[in-house]
Amino acid sequence: MGIKIVRFEHKQKEQWGVVSGDQILLLSGTYQSLAGFLEHGKEEARAINAQDNTESVSLNEVTILSPVTKPARIICQGVNYSEHRSETGMEAARAPFNMIFSKADSSLCGATSEIVRPRDVKLLDYELELGLVIGTEISEASDITDENLHLYIAGLVIVNDVSARDVQLSQGQWLKGKSYRTFCPTGPYLYLLDKDELPLIHDLDLKLWVNDELRQSANSNQLLYKPAETLIELSEIMDLSPGDLIVTGTAGGVALSLTPQVMELLSNMAIPYQQKLNLLEEGQLISGKYLKDGDVIRCQIKSANGVIDLGEQISKVVPSKGKTLVNS
Amino acid sequence: MGIKIVRFEHKQKEQWGVVSGDQILLLSGTYQSLAGFLEHGKEEARAINAQDNTESVSLNEVTILSPVTKPARIICQGVNYSEHRSETGMEAARAPFNMIFSKADSSLCGATSEIVRPRDVKLLDYELELGLVIGTEISEASDITDENLHLYIAGLVIVNDVSARDVQLSQGQWLKGKSYRTFCPTGPYLYLLDKDELPLIHDLDLKLWVNDELRQSANSNQLLYKPAETLIELSEIMDLSPGDLIVTGTAGGVALSLTPQVMELLSNMAIPYQQKLNLLEEGQLISGKYLKDGDVIRCQIKSANGVIDLGEQISKVVPSKGKTLVNS
Repeated sequence: MGIKIVRFEHKQKEQWGVVSGDQILLLSGTYQSLAGFLEHGKEEARAINAQDNTESVSLNEVTILSPVTKPARIICQGVNYSEHRSETGMEAARAPFNMIFSKADSSLCGATSEIVRPRDVKLLDYELELGLVIGTEISEASDITDENLHLYIAGLVIVNDVSARDVQLSQGQWLKGKSYRTFCPTGPYLYLLDKDELPLIHDLDLKLWVNDELRQSANSNQLLYKPAETLIELSEIMDLSPGDLIVTGTAGGVALSLTPQVMELLSNMAIPYQQKLNLLEEGQLISGKYLKDGDVIRCQIKSANGVIDLGEQISKVVPSKGKTLVNS
Repeated sequence: MGIKIVRFEHKQKEQWGVVSGDQILLLSGTYQSLAGFLEHGKEEARAINAQDNTESVSLNEVTILSPVTKPARIICQGVNYSEHRSETGMEAARAPFNMIFSKADSSLCGATSEIVRPRDVKLLDYELELGLVIGTEISEASDITDENLHLYIAGLVIVNDVSARDVQLSQGQWLKGKSYRTFCPTGPYLYLLDKDELPLIHDLDLKLWVNDELRQSANSNQLLYKPAETLIELSEIMDLSPGDLIVTGTAGGVALSLTPQVMELLSNMAIPYQQKLNLLEEGQLISGKYLKDGDVIRCQIKSANGVIDLGEQISKVVPSKGKTLVNS
């Protein structure tokens, strides 16, 4: 059975541990990065799980941190569920290409961290996604299959790919609107996969609530581009390293809702920027689904048989306190 | 006066040095990363420059490596010169937003490395750009001006933002088409700026030749979004660290040439992928300007008064030898 790793802060000290019930069994090793833990801490973590008499601390007493640490590459798949494709005005069928973009690693935050809404952002949206943590160095085209996937993926995390739709969709390239600090709550747990559990990666239930209203509910078997084929393609283009994060795309149920006509206008680079902003604000705010200051987002990912459970994220939206020096 | 830093391989060993004429003065320190050099090697580099009797090696005897090292964030500005905006079918005037995207850091390669054309890529293009190397940790909104820019930018590099137009423009998000390995020749030198030279950042001549035909010729005073205002905006969104690279956008003269009508079709997400690919191949190949196997690209960036000289890149295009496992 896989184990649940947590990175947390306790008494001003960052530590790693293994979750057992409501306790964290403390690892003796200290690791500055997820790559360091994957290289040096995994064996202790697997051993500790079977022991007694290990020093522990209650989950309630600590601050959970993102198990994915900076620096990390965060590579994201776009519009990779049919229901999400439809709600954004696109054809529901699998696209002829795997849409890839990235988020800045400084957007990473913990599973109970606050999500800070940038001052000028009016269309703040959530995107629950299954995150794959890379477990090995990938530096050339690699023939990755469901049978050898365990050699490439160390584990799984919950990711909320928070998105400022006004910035993302009016400016064309998505990096900026998806990269603000705190826009990538990750964890709480890194679920270290056992080889024989890997088939369950295709049968995970994903659920997201806003203020206890269920907004997203899907299963990873609906992913249009699957993990193995996605990693093959990425391996042909770029290097990936232990501790990097692949985010597999969101299901239906986000706040964003576009007709094909509006999507066409928004994506068209010949349409003026201000017209796109107006289109978005006029069309989107009326649903009342976008995140407001004080909203609480709750996310879960688990297998139906209960074997894999990535824990629960609980994130509160708060307004930015910082000054804004220029418009984004 | 600023100094020219090189990272190179000599006798199977990676080293750092300071360029003096056709010689490299060797630094005694060894640094695994550009961040390491900036933290621990800069003082020795500045001191060595004034000394005699330092061990040296000829520039001709070494293999020049990219001074920017992995891991690094590579943050790019798009369509940031009027002439390039026009040739891509956009309004020439400064856009109301600073277009930002990223390249994978595994695209970094040296100034004399070969550029590997991926097997299925037919529209391989060059983009000469001024690269800014970050010199300090930026982790919050920062009030960056031309007067304090030296605190944020450690130095300058030549960057060729090599782009597979068929992948980039048919798939909408630019990361993939700009991130293939060897798609980011960087260097040869990291020009460490002196504070009093900073105004010259706004008066650098950029020139790129393909097989000795001058294709790009511009001056950094034509940048639409300037370094200080760009860094302010980035600081409001994401963290940047010493050794990260900001690429400021390319001038006119690339192979890509689009009418506003074709740009409109290519950017429109409602237009089918295959139709975009056909449009690109039919419209673009006839000019004969795209890079072919065997082509040699030469790039220079220097100030008119000769004070700042970032060296010369000479890159040969070669076909991929690797197998292609899936279509990109």
